[in-house]
Amino acid sequence: MTTTPWSSRFEEGLHPAIAAFNASIGFDIELIEYDLTGSVAHAQMLAHTGILSAAEAEAIVTGLEQIRSEWRSGQFLPAIDQEDVHFAVERRLVAIVGEVGKKLHTARSRNDQVNTDLRLWQRARIDAIAERLLDFERVLLDLAKAHVETLIPGYTHLQRAQPVSLAHHLLAYVEMAERDRSRLEEVRARTNICPLGSGALAGTVLPIDRHYTARLLGFAGVSENSLDAVSDRDFAVEFLAALSLIAVHLSRLAEEMVLWASQEFRFVLLTDRCATGSSLMPQKKNPDVPELVRGKSGRVFGHLLAMLTTLKGLPLAYNKDLQEDKEALFDAARTIEASVEAMTILMREGIDFQSDRLSAAVGEDFSNATDAADYLVRRGVPFRSAYGIIGAVVKHCLGAGLLLRELPIDEWQRFHPAFEADLYAAIAPETVVAARNSYGGTGFEQVRAALARAEARLQAAVASK
Amino acid sequence: MTTTPWSSRFEEGLHPAIAAFNASIGFDIELIEYDLTGSVAHAQMLAHTGILSAAEAEAIVTGLEQIRSEWRSGQFLPAIDQEDVHFAVERRLVAIVGEVGKKLHTARSRNDQVNTDLRLWQRARIDAIAERLLDFERVLLDLAKAHVETLIPGYTHLQRAQPVSLAHHLLAYVEMAERDRSRLEEVRARTNICPLGSGALAGTVLPIDRHYTARLLGFAGVSENSLDAVSDRDFAVEFLAALSLIAVHLSRLAEEMVLWASQEFRFVLLTDRCATGSSLMPQKKNPDVPELVRGKSGRVFGHLLAMLTTLKGLPLAYNKDLQEDKEALFDAARTIEASVEAMTILMREGIDFQSDRLSAAVGEDFSNATDAADYLVRRGVPFRSAYGIIGAVVKHCLGAGLLLRELPIDEWQRFHPAFEADLYAAIAPETVVAARNSYGGTGFEQVRAALARAEARLQAAVASK
Amino acid sequence: MTTTPWSSRFEEGLHPAIAAFNASIGFDIELIEYDLTGSVAHAQMLAHTGILSAAEAEAIVTGLEQIRSEWRSGQFLPAIDQEDVHFAVERRLVAIVGEVGKKLHTARSRNDQVNTDLRLWQRARIDAIAERLLDFERVLLDLAKAHVETLIPGYTHLQRAQPVSLAHHLLAYVEMAERDRSRLEEVRARTNICPLGSGALAGTVLPIDRHYTARLLGFAGVSENSLDAVSDRDFAVEFLAALSLIAVHLSRLAEEMVLWASQEFRFVLLTDRCATGSSLMPQKKNPDVPELVRGKSGRVFGHLLAMLTTLKGLPLAYNKDLQEDKEALFDAARTIEASVEAMTILMREGIDFQSDRLSAAVGEDFSNATDAADYLVRRGVPFRSAYGIIGAVVKHCLGAGLLLRELPIDEWQRFHPAFEADLYAAIAPETVVAARNSYGGTGFEQVRAALARAEARLQAAVASK
Amino acid sequence: MTTTPWSSRFEEGLHPAIAAFNASIGFDIELIEYDLTGSVAHAQMLAHTGILSAAEAEAIVTGLEQIRSEWRSGQFLPAIDQEDVHFAVERRLVAIVGEVGKKLHTARSRNDQVNTDLRLWQRARIDAIAERLLDFERVLLDLAKAHVETLIPGYTHLQRAQPVSLAHHLLAYVEMAERDRSRLEEVRARTNICPLGSGALAGTVLPIDRHYTARLLGFAGVSENSLDAVSDRDFAVEFLAALSLIAVHLSRLAEEMVLWASQEFRFVLLTDRCATGSSLMPQKKNPDVPELVRGKSGRVFGHLLAMLTTLKGLPLAYNKDLQEDKEALFDAARTIEASVEAMTILMREGIDFQSDRLSAAVGEDFSNATDAADYLVRRGVPFRSAYGIIGAVVKHCLGAGLLLRELPIDEWQRFHPAFEADLYAAIAPETVVAARNSYGGTGFEQVRAALARAEARLQAAVASK
Repeated sequence: MTTTPWSSRFEEGLHPAIAAFNASIGFDIELIEYDLTGSVAHAQMLAHTGILSAAEAEAIVTGLEQIRSEWRSGQFLPAIDQEDVHFAVERRLVAIVGEVGKKLHTARSRNDQVNTDLRLWQRARIDAIAERLLDFERVLLDLAKAHVETLIPGYTHLQRAQPVSLAHHLLAYVEMAERDRSRLEEVRARTNICPLGSGALAGTVLPIDRHYTARLLGFAGVSENSLDAVSDRDFAVEFLAALSLIAVHLSRLAEEMVLWASQEFRFVLLTDRCATGSSLMPQKKNPDVPELVRGKSGRVFGHLLAMLTTLKGLPLAYNKDLQEDKEALFDAARTIEASVEAMTILMREGIDFQSDRLSAAVGEDFSNATDAADYLVRRGVPFRSAYGIIGAVVKHCLGAGLLLRELPIDEWQRFHPAFEADLYAAIAPETVVAARNSYGGTGFEQVRAALARAEARLQAAVASK
Repeated sequence: MTTTPWSSRFEEGLHPAIAAFNASIGFDIELIEYDLTGSVAHAQMLAHTGILSAAEAEAIVTGLEQIRSEWRSGQFLPAIDQEDVHFAVERRLVAIVGEVGKKLHTARSRNDQVNTDLRLWQRARIDAIAERLLDFERVLLDLAKAHVETLIPGYTHLQRAQPVSLAHHLLAYVEMAERDRSRLEEVRARTNICPLGSGALAGTVLPIDRHYTARLLGFAGVSENSLDAVSDRDFAVEFLAALSLIAVHLSRLAEEMVLWASQEFRFVLLTDRCATGSSLMPQKKNPDVPELVRGKSGRVFGHLLAMLTTLKGLPLAYNKDLQEDKEALFDAARTIEASVEAMTILMREGIDFQSDRLSAAVGEDFSNATDAADYLVRRGVPFRSAYGIIGAVVKHCLGAGLLLRELPIDEWQRFHPAFEADLYAAIAPETVVAARNSYGGTGFEQVRAALARAEARLQAAVASK
Repeated sequence: MTTTPWSSRFEEGLHPAIAAFNASIGFDIELIEYDLTGSVAHAQMLAHTGILSAAEAEAIVTGLEQIRSEWRSGQFLPAIDQEDVHFAVERRLVAIVGEVGKKLHTARSRNDQVNTDLRLWQRARIDAIAERLLDFERVLLDLAKAHVETLIPGYTHLQRAQPVSLAHHLLAYVEMAERDRSRLEEVRARTNICPLGSGALAGTVLPIDRHYTARLLGFAGVSENSLDAVSDRDFAVEFLAALSLIAVHLSRLAEEMVLWASQEFRFVLLTDRCATGSSLMPQKKNPDVPELVRGKSGRVFGHLLAMLTTLKGLPLAYNKDLQEDKEALFDAARTIEASVEAMTILMREGIDFQSDRLSAAVGEDFSNATDAADYLVRRGVPFRSAYGIIGAVVKHCLGAGLLLRELPIDEWQRFHPAFEADLYAAIAPETVVAARNSYGGTGFEQVRAALARAEARLQAAVASK
Repeated sequence: MTTTPWSSRFEEGLHPAIAAFNASIGFDIELIEYDLTGSVAHAQMLAHTGILSAAEAEAIVTGLEQIRSEWRSGQFLPAIDQEDVHFAVERRLVAIVGEVGKKLHTARSRNDQVNTDLRLWQRARIDAIAERLLDFERVLLDLAKAHVETLIPGYTHLQRAQPVSLAHHLLAYVEMAERDRSRLEEVRARTNICPLGSGALAGTVLPIDRHYTARLLGFAGVSENSLDAVSDRDFAVEFLAALSLIAVHLSRLAEEMVLWASQEFRFVLLTDRCATGSSLMPQKKNPDVPELVRGKSGRVFGHLLAMLTTLKGLPLAYNKDLQEDKEALFDAARTIEASVEAMTILMREGIDFQSDRLSAAVGEDFSNATDAADYLVRRGVPFRSAYGIIGAVVKHCLGAGLLLRELPIDEWQRFHPAFEADLYAAIAPETVVAARNSYGGTGFEQVRAALARAEARLQAAVASK
């Protein structure tokens, strides 16, 4: 029978299968650095308030930092019978510093301790993912700058709708990434609250100074209610929801890259840096990266749902169900961090835009039909009527196997007398893109202004780190 | 064959089953007021920029307001063959004002129009739900004020852990509701951005003034990228995520009410106002309200997952899949609004706390064991050792059928000589609750301070409406 | 205060908002025909066992059938204050037949009654959806028969891999639909168990004959345990899981139709029967049907997750949370039934395969590279080595702008001496498709055999209805 | 640059971060035994059909079995640069047996290979979990046999409804477990189909014998369509859905164990074998096992949703997204296997029913009210009227602080003249439980019959293994 810190009223040991079932050391070891940091701050606060003597706290802190070294050098590897990272650390501490180590847990419970660790971990992950998003935006912005005047078909319903600037298309993803970062910032603010000192559920009788500990750990404030604090996992759900939206955005870009790399689209060629082959078909070059990124969205949504389901219907305060929070969180953060990185590499060095193909593409369809209608609107025809006229022209052209630019002017005039020879210039791809100059539109002037604004925001975000 | 605004290039009508399958009028009619408001602002902007004449705009606005009256009085009820609320309104407008009505859709697409409508709708729902949450907090705060010194067992793992103030317990839910409101505010900020003027996907060639329209509609700003704007449903996902967390919190309180109303707990009696009976068992009084609220969490999570799944892998820009956004959103908002209201009523007039039962409960268990350990800690025993001693005392008492307060002092002293007669006062429920006076703890002094802070925040929130 | 069948021990009425919150009549009215049928059988059993007299039962049955007529003719429309369909029917029955109507609920509870209704409803929905799937398979099989020798690029990773018979491609979806039907059949078997007679939770003291009722209602057996029976919703979860897989399959076909209808693929043209236009862009013809079907998968998954979440952690036996089962089920069944129908119409009359485009497509890429490797394998080269050789050939051809069939034989021979002039025939699209003649492969012979087997299975399935 | 089996047409190596992102060796190593078994059968088939010589096949088989030994003894541990388990095995094989090893992949692709491996793995997991369920049922049945006449309150809405036999309550979970096993059997049947020989997507040109391989691997048949086969993950979704329902059932039992172990219920005491303590509160004994099991339901639902989401909208045939199938499946199977085992141990040695407490509980409430109504029904009072009378009696008793058995007979008779002195016997707990003797009800006679049937089914299931 392993002795645990809680075994004094127990006579018989845990069933071995149950001990293994209960243990979290297999995954919560990911928290060890945060657990050590939190314990150091806790010990310092205990000394600051006189609950421990300065010498006691110093011995404890020294012991904790020794554990940190042992961990980093691979010497400290707790076994499954340690139950969780907190007990593993405490036991090692007592082994190093002796009896005084037993005083570390004064005025603290695992319930507030694990919540503190998790918040410290999450704060670090948020910062790391935000950093990755900045890299991603950097690559998109650089690509966009190089492609303001590269035209690409714009789609709705995956049908060609209106040609757009490739830069405009890329900037759409910059917008999404910026929203993602703004959400992460808000999640960070609610994460960055210190629950330590809430005890098991009700606070403590000892004269602790929670604000002191919070300051040492860089928290912006302390939690207000101990029952809420030890059972609160809102911050984790929020993080998973923010990660799910990042996954949505990446899956959309990924879908486009898979489409664009197909033989049918050929808007991009995959370089050898990010593509793989087939074990059977020698000609294959597969867009594994965007496919995997797209597929991984399911995993992140699943973790979000798992966490919500686990929390549903739990009475106050801490319940063991909450141990299930960690693996979902850890995996989701890892998945998104790797996915953002992979898409950043893909966009930076994994694709080559095929300019010839793109410029041919925008001339070979009816995506300038709206512009032909706008031509009439500018000549006083109500929009709905102009729309009807152009619809008839399109139907005629499809039958005749002609594009709009190939229809002679006299035929145009049979549909409406307002058409004149300047029509052809008005519906040329460059013209129609340039003309969509409303704020946020694809007109080159707008795109350049949008690029400048995005660049400024990005630089501000980088500078504020 | 019904004529639709887009039918000019089509020769054959839609299959009737397909027309029904595609139509959204059955549910998007919920947007009608916002659609009218958005169209009024759009018409005014078109006049402001000279795209329409003042007279044209006035005719259109008058027509739109007539439709609003017809809708409110039940005269305007579009049939399924109207496809969606936007076409239904446009057709009715043309019927009322004639040809000029066809000019309303100038420089606009259904893609930016529906996004605008949805944001206006969501902004209103956020405000309504935030209002409901304030009512809910009001009721909880009032209850808490009445119960600062009512003690109740505090639980972890649904095992009695340490007694707490009932006010402290109730304030935990106030904390959750405050976080819920803070999330809603942030979602509101990202919702309150005007996409109108993004056109179908690429902006428009006409000299519109998007900031003008945005101001008319009370939006805080305009969207930056037209491709992103027409396909962005982040705001909807965020709203559903925020609603899911509200559902989690309500499900937790609901679980507690179900438990507390059971014959085993009897912490509350259900009043006749919120309980129902059985069709078979005449003695039954069932806590239907909290059970339903708890059950409805699944529905809200489901809508969140549905939306995420629908968005996964969609290429830019608008795709018809996005039509699936509405029913999930509408139902989730309705569900949460009704659930918050139901729980508010339940807490206000559906339960009676059983004070006798509660005060008996806190004296009948070992939830003061930590305090016995703290007693030793205050006398210099290291926490881990004190814990072990009290564990042994508890084991002894369980065998002897005694509570801690029933164990004679000489027996206590056999476990550790530091125990003295003042132990009994130190482990009395009122003492132990009062003693947990750390910030955010359950000590009466802390609870009163927390109540005062919560009251101030609530009043500030109400004042800022 | 509305009088309800359970109100005798209650003094005060329900809060009106709570009454509305609790009421299910707004949606469970969908069960009315099944409720009536179940009640008729129950009354007949009560007479059969002598619990009611024959005359009493006859009066009740006549009354129930009158309600059925009133419902069908639109005369019976219960208001919200009727709480649920069961009470609404019972009240109307007493109004029609007088006091004897009160005897209908003898030996029955709403808990076993609603479970019975729901199983009858689900059995009918399963049959209807299975029927729709047969229609869908019929259309696919007919299309496949017409296209055995139509070649189409086969893809992995959305990269062209190997050409296949279009019939083979379509038959993949027939396989999925067959699995869907086999799952539905299994769900049906577990659905088709009669819970009636389980009472509120514990059975009844009256000498009922549950097997008799079950036979009258066409159930295959009776449930074994009353506590389980009244709280069992496994059948509903299973149905939602089966519907979710149907949604997955439809979403995959839908994705392909969206791709194939794009200007880049042009494998199919959309007919006017299933496509819609744009309100702004006159040239547009949008694949709304497959997009909507694809989008609706999220909704069905969401309902599955909602149901699972609702069931999580419910103690025995019936809890009000279970009222949340209905809307999810109803909507999911409706969604899938409509989606299968819409995809059936789309495949039957909504698309035209573009044969010229398809036959051009299969000749314009490197999807015969595996066959060139197989050519070497047949001449004794180990597969991995042959693969390497052809990889080098492909790389050479890409650089030279040649397809494999365009590379002169002497150049082939420089890569390996075993290449001879018969290579060109060996890598022609028709040859390579015909050659993949392993069981289940795309070789024409195999496809014809597979078609015949599928036809036989379909006819057997139709015959067994 | 690592050489991979597919690198011949590639000039530049993968970006290292991308190689790590793509690699599945970190988790698909779980498939290694199945991969080896599948490869052995494949090699034997290649010899059987003359594609390989007997000597070649023998060399390959010997090499594969050597890898199996190396794996089992810990000598074979492939690094991340091996991409996946299939390549790792193939490379090791070539290292052991030389060039002939390169012939193993003849007429096979990773696409059909991984599907085969996964089906073999899943078949084994299904069998293992079904075995665990049998153990679980065994424990429940044994407990039930010992507790036929132990009474326990039966609940609806967590309100006491009617007393039941504890055996009846436990048998409800046996019913659920039996349904779980029947679902697993059906999933097993659809899993147990051999996809090998489907090639990359289209079959193979070589004269393989798929039925031969299938027989060697114990598959019941071969897949019908190669495009479907390589991209089919229905079996995985079905498995996750079946596991989700097991999770639901376990979560319900877990919830009851948490409730029953609370100080308020005290229906069971936790033994030291399955309970843990608190690091802070020495008196605590926490039901960690059922809490964790309850919490883990979220994880399993999440994996189900993840898989569905990943599959949504994938075009034929194999896409890299499908690599995401494994971790969810592996973790879900592991979670359920461990959870069933943990609950089996809990029920067997982790709880002690508190018989005194249970027999006291069933006498202290109004759960015999229905029986008082039934007493009147048996004397000719219509059910609805009897219900109303007893409702009034209950209301009177609640006011007077009496239980039904404490109300004098003359007072009963003031409510209805049919009450006589035999009423008291009729509403005694043992009487009312015994009287619910309808099929599947809680009457002792029924419970004994149900026990005998369940025992027979269990023995048949065990015998058929």
